[in-house]
Amino acid sequence: MTRRAQLVGTGLIGGSIGLALRTAGWHVTGSDRNGASAARALELGAIDAVGDDADAELTFVATPVGTVADVARGRSGVVTDVGSVKASIVAAVANPQFVGGHPMAGSEQEGVDGSRADLFQGAVWVLTPVATTDHAAHALVRSVVSSFGAEVVELPPERHDALVAVVSHVPHLTAASLMRLAAERSEEHAALLRLAAGGFRDMTRIAAGHPGIWPDICIENQGAITEVLDLLIGELTAMRHRVETADRAGLLDALSRARSARLNLPGRVAATAEVAEVRVPVPDRPGVLAEITTLASELGVNIHDLEIAHSSEGDAGVLLLLVDATLVERFIGGLVARTYKATARSLE
Amino acid sequence: MTRRAQLVGTGLIGGSIGLALRTAGWHVTGSDRNGASAARALELGAIDAVGDDADAELTFVATPVGTVADVARGRSGVVTDVGSVKASIVAAVANPQFVGGHPMAGSEQEGVDGSRADLFQGAVWVLTPVATTDHAAHALVRSVVSSFGAEVVELPPERHDALVAVVSHVPHLTAASLMRLAAERSEEHAALLRLAAGGFRDMTRIAAGHPGIWPDICIENQGAITEVLDLLIGELTAMRHRVETADRAGLLDALSRARSARLNLPGRVAATAEVAEVRVPVPDRPGVLAEITTLASELGVNIHDLEIAHSSEGDAGVLLLLVDATLVERFIGGLVARTYKATARSLE
Repeated sequence: MTRRAQLVGTGLIGGSIGLALRTAGWHVTGSDRNGASAARALELGAIDAVGDDADAELTFVATPVGTVADVARGRSGVVTDVGSVKASIVAAVANPQFVGGHPMAGSEQEGVDGSRADLFQGAVWVLTPVATTDHAAHALVRSVVSSFGAEVVELPPERHDALVAVVSHVPHLTAASLMRLAAERSEEHAALLRLAAGGFRDMTRIAAGHPGIWPDICIENQGAITEVLDLLIGELTAMRHRVETADRAGLLDALSRARSARLNLPGRVAATAEVAEVRVPVPDRPGVLAEITTLASELGVNIHDLEIAHSSEGDAGVLLLLVDATLVERFIGGLVARTYKATARSLE
Repeated sequence: MTRRAQLVGTGLIGGSIGLALRTAGWHVTGSDRNGASAARALELGAIDAVGDDADAELTFVATPVGTVADVARGRSGVVTDVGSVKASIVAAVANPQFVGGHPMAGSEQEGVDGSRADLFQGAVWVLTPVATTDHAAHALVRSVVSSFGAEVVELPPERHDALVAVVSHVPHLTAASLMRLAAERSEEHAALLRLAAGGFRDMTRIAAGHPGIWPDICIENQGAITEVLDLLIGELTAMRHRVETADRAGLLDALSRARSARLNLPGRVAATAEVAEVRVPVPDRPGVLAEITTLASELGVNIHDLEIAHSSEGDAGVLLLLVDATLVERFIGGLVARTYKATARSLE
C-alpha cells in the first residue's frame, strides 16, 4: 500500500518536502492559496496531484507562520508544520495529533522553483511535542522527518522560540536597525557608505531579505523577541558604559569572551563529520578561486562550506574553507605547493 | 636623487606601505617597537634598512591607534598616519606638517607576513587635512597615497570618526553583544547553538577578531561611538515597540527601508568599474564551486568579489559573484548551459 501525505503550501519548503516524500515512495497531494504555485509544484514533480486528500496519513502545513494554526486546526490525521515560531501555534491548534515542527533550512529563493529533495539533508529539524501530544503521532512525524536526512532536535515550544529569537529574529531586527542608521547618517554624502567594508556588509546582509515574512514572525514570537531585545539593549548599554568610562580592561574582557564564544560556535555541518578549517589569504588576481576550488576537487577534498572573511576594515580577505579533517594535510600540501600561505585550524 | 621615506610600525599596514613605496622607487627605513617585526620586514623587502632616518621627506606612522599621537609629535618633515580614529590624533599632534590618514584596508592577518604591495589598490584612503594643515604637506601625502592605487577621500576628522563609528566600531561592539547573548542563553545546551544558521554567523563573524586593538579605538573615538550606540539603542527600542504593539505596518515599513538601503549599498569595487551581481543558488554537491569559478576563468570573466549569502534560517546558500557588467550575459549563458539557475542584477 502506498502511503499518502498531504501538503498545504507549496513554496520552497513545501515543495522540498513534497520532493523528499515522493523520493521515499509516498503519494503526495498538495494545495496552495496561490494556484499557480501548486500547478508549478505538480510540474516540478513535487506533488502527485493538486487538491486535498481526505485519506492522507500525514499533513504538512507549510504556509506563512501567521496562517498555520488556522490551516492546521481543521485537519484530520497526523498534522505537523514548518513555522518558525512554535508556542503560539501549538497552543492555538491544541490537538494531540498535531506535532509542531521547524526545519532549519531554507534559502533566499522563496518560491517552489528553488525546491530540492535534499534540502533537509544534514539540517536540524526541531520538533516540539508537548505533554498532550499523541505518542504515535509524534513517532510518525519523527520517523518521516528523519527519513529526509534531517537531524531531529526536540525542544519545548517556548524554549525553541527563545532560541530562535536569539539566533534569528533579533539578529534580523538588529541588522535592519544598523542598516537604517547607516543610511540615515550617510544621507549628506551617500558615496561615503563605500567606507562600509566587509564586516559591515556581513552584518547587514540579512537585512536585504524580503521583509514580507517578518511582521507575522515578530508578532507570533512577540514575548521572546521583546525579552531578547531588552537583553541586547542591556548589553549595548553596558558596552556604552565601558566606552564612556574608558574601561579598557572591561572592554578587553567583554570582547575576548565574545571572541571565544564565536570561535567555539559549532560548525554548520553535522556533528558526526570531522571537519577542519583551512584559511587561505586571497591575493587579488584573477583565477585564484577557480585554482583553489579546482585543486580541492583534484585532491578529492570536499568543501563543506566556504566563506571570505573580511576584517572590520578594508576588503582584503581570507578564504575560509571547511573540509574533511582527514584530508586537511593533503589540501594544505597542495595549496602550499601552489604558493598559497594556507594554514589549518581544527574546530574540535 | 632617491626619495627617502620612513616607517614607524611594521605590521600588516606598515609592511604593505613599505612594499608599495619601494615598488615606486623610494628608499624606506623602518622601525618597530617589536625588533623581530622590523627584522622580518627587512627580510621580506618591505624596508631597505632598520632604524630611523633623519633625512626622510615623509614619515608614515603605522603604530596602534593609542600611540600614534606620541610617535608623530616628535618627527620632522611631513608626517602622516594610518590610525582608524582621527579627531583626537589630529588635535594631539597639532602640527601643520601632519596630515591624518586612514586607509580602509587590512586583513585579519595582522603581522608583517601578510603585507602586500597591492594592498591599497582600489581601496579608499581617507585623509583628514584641517585649516592649519600645510598645503605642500597635504599635496605630498595625497600624491604618494594615490600612487599606491588608493582612492583618496577627504573628510574633516570629526566626520570621519562619526562615519567609522557607524560602519565599523559600533557594528563590532554589536556583533560582540549578540554573540555574548547567544553564548549565555545557550549555556544549558551548547549544541543548540547549531540552530544558529548563516545569518547569525554572518552577523557575528567580526566578533572573532583579535580584541587587542579595540580598547584603544573605543577610547580614542569615545564621543562618536557613544553617540551612535545611543542611536542604535533608540532604533532597537523603536523596533521593540513595534513588536510589542503588533504594529505590522510599522515593521514592514522599517524592514522595507532597511532592505532598500542594503540593496543600494555601494559595491566594494572602485566606482569606475562597471560591475553587476550574478546570483547562483548553490546545490549541495562536490565540485560546484570549482565548476563555477573555473567556468568564469574560461569565459574570461573576472570575479571581483564572491560571497555565499545565507538566509536567516538554514544553511542553503546563494553564491553572489561581482563580475564585469559587460560580461554578465556571457557568464549567465555559460552557467545556464551547465544547468545553474543563474540570474543577474545590475548594481547601477
